[in-house]
Amino acid sequence: MHVTIEDAHKAIEAARAKAVELDTQMCIAVVDSGGNLKAFYRMDGAWVGSIDIAHKKAKTSVFFGMTTGQIGQLSQPGGPLYGIEHSNDGLITFPGGIPIVDADGEMSGAIGVSGSTVENDHAVALAGASSIGATELPAHPWRT
Amino acid sequence: MHVTIEDAHKAIEAARAKAVELDTQMCIAVVDSGGNLKAFYRMDGAWVGSIDIAHKKAKTSVFFGMTTGQIGQLSQPGGPLYGIEHSNDGLITFPGGIPIVDADGEMSGAIGVSGSTVENDHAVALAGASSIGATELPAHPWRT
Amino acid sequence: MHVTIEDAHKAIEAARAKAVELDTQMCIAVVDSGGNLKAFYRMDGAWVGSIDIAHKKAKTSVFFGMTTGQIGQLSQPGGPLYGIEHSNDGLITFPGGIPIVDADGEMSGAIGVSGSTVENDHAVALAGASSIGATELPAHPWRT
Amino acid sequence: MHVTIEDAHKAIEAARAKAVELDTQMCIAVVDSGGNLKAFYRMDGAWVGSIDIAHKKAKTSVFFGMTTGQIGQLSQPGGPLYGIEHSNDGLITFPGGIPIVDADGEMSGAIGVSGSTVENDHAVALAGASSIGATELPAHPWRT
Repeated sequence: MHVTIEDAHKAIEAARAKAVELDTQMCIAVVDSGGNLKAFYRMDGAWVGSIDIAHKKAKTSVFFGMTTGQIGQLSQPGGPLYGIEHSNDGLITFPGGIPIVDADGEMSGAIGVSGSTVENDHAVALAGASSIGATELPAHPWRT
Repeated sequence: MHVTIEDAHKAIEAARAKAVELDTQMCIAVVDSGGNLKAFYRMDGAWVGSIDIAHKKAKTSVFFGMTTGQIGQLSQPGGPLYGIEHSNDGLITFPGGIPIVDADGEMSGAIGVSGSTVENDHAVALAGASSIGATELPAHPWRT
Repeated sequence: MHVTIEDAHKAIEAARAKAVELDTQMCIAVVDSGGNLKAFYRMDGAWVGSIDIAHKKAKTSVFFGMTTGQIGQLSQPGGPLYGIEHSNDGLITFPGGIPIVDADGEMSGAIGVSGSTVENDHAVALAGASSIGATELPAHPWRT
Repeated sequence: MHVTIEDAHKAIEAARAKAVELDTQMCIAVVDSGGNLKAFYRMDGAWVGSIDIAHKKAKTSVFFGMTTGQIGQLSQPGGPLYGIEHSNDGLITFPGGIPIVDADGEMSGAIGVSGSTVENDHAVALAGASSIGATELPAHPWRT
């Protein structure tokens, strides 16, 4: 099951509204459960370098069914996943990527946000993800 | 001058409406005048392989200030630009990419569409581009 | 607004003069506000490996509107942007890249320098950037 | 032996003058005998897509000690080098790339030009190459 364009748009709109509230300029990407881009939105004034980071955060989240921040805690020097960023044509492992999961634990995609502090990026991604999915992630979301 | 998100969205909405009218499922990409992604929209049911093609059509158009179809006429075997597709991390040179140019000849970006026949792809891109820019392209659009 | 070739050349000449003064051999790259190469200059005797580093420093700076050294302080292990170098086909986050910004805060491009110590690289980049733009950078330079 | 920055600059200046005479906007790249970028110059108004093409034409020429047009004649469908563009991270095999060779047949680099018709691209590259090297190329230029 993949996120629909209707839901992807709803998530982007919720994320955009949060970004405006925080007075930030964001890149917002939504990918489906296969990691393929569904929708993308770059606010005027957002950093050009954030295009790829938003996209990679969304892919990283859906690739492992975790927030990017969770993976980042495991990929520090000495950690069990140190260097994982070298896989999959490049991952981003700091906050701002969140899986989109329904109430049954099924993952239909992910959202990635970049353009401000990682706290703001995460808050904007959360506004998007929670507008169409669960806010509490299961330990291992599944795909169909 | 770069295309604004307001105009990018307007172009995507016009393209989407045309795609529905033609009973097709399209990927629609808008890039700014530097070739960087501004907005992207994948209709439900569109081919996953069209994501990259739509994106590359938009980039190809803005890179040379021409429609992708015009470049494709020059890049056939024996033609003057044969093999140009090997540059710029891959170009797409069949129809579906159109520069976004204002009445003064200034290019602010481009739109790329993929998902159906090249005739349909071009028609959908044209609906998008003409909703926010000129329909007649100058010989050499310029950037600021 | 993109840096002109006249200004790009002026910046390279100022950077070159500083490099000679420091008795170093440098690669000097200037990109426009879309991150696309405008001009490049490799002094005789400069490291071949510095070609790509100078180019990536310039791109990194314009992608985020910051000096590469500022980004590097945020991307250390345990820092908020740890691993950002894996995005955008590779970033360089040590000193030597500086945005080119005018007195109004508008960013027209960036300069990247590589070939010596990071202190020298930064000093040479600063000589180039300040010859055509502001020396004090705003918190969030903008593009048009 | 590699082209010096003094000679690379002389070649770019001669090429630029020819481009102005032809009323064109060109990207001009000079690589050394190892195929590594020595100098690059993008005239205002030149196509962004020509940056990579100029660079790849210069590399293609020095990689095989031939003009890009000569290689293009061999890489057409049915020709002996069909598909050679897939090697070396992408080659460009239409006119506009010329080796820089001295009177003894030693090759120190190459120049690549892109931005107009292939006839104009070749004429501008020739103006550059002949300002610092031989106009008649030997069958197999050599490197030291």
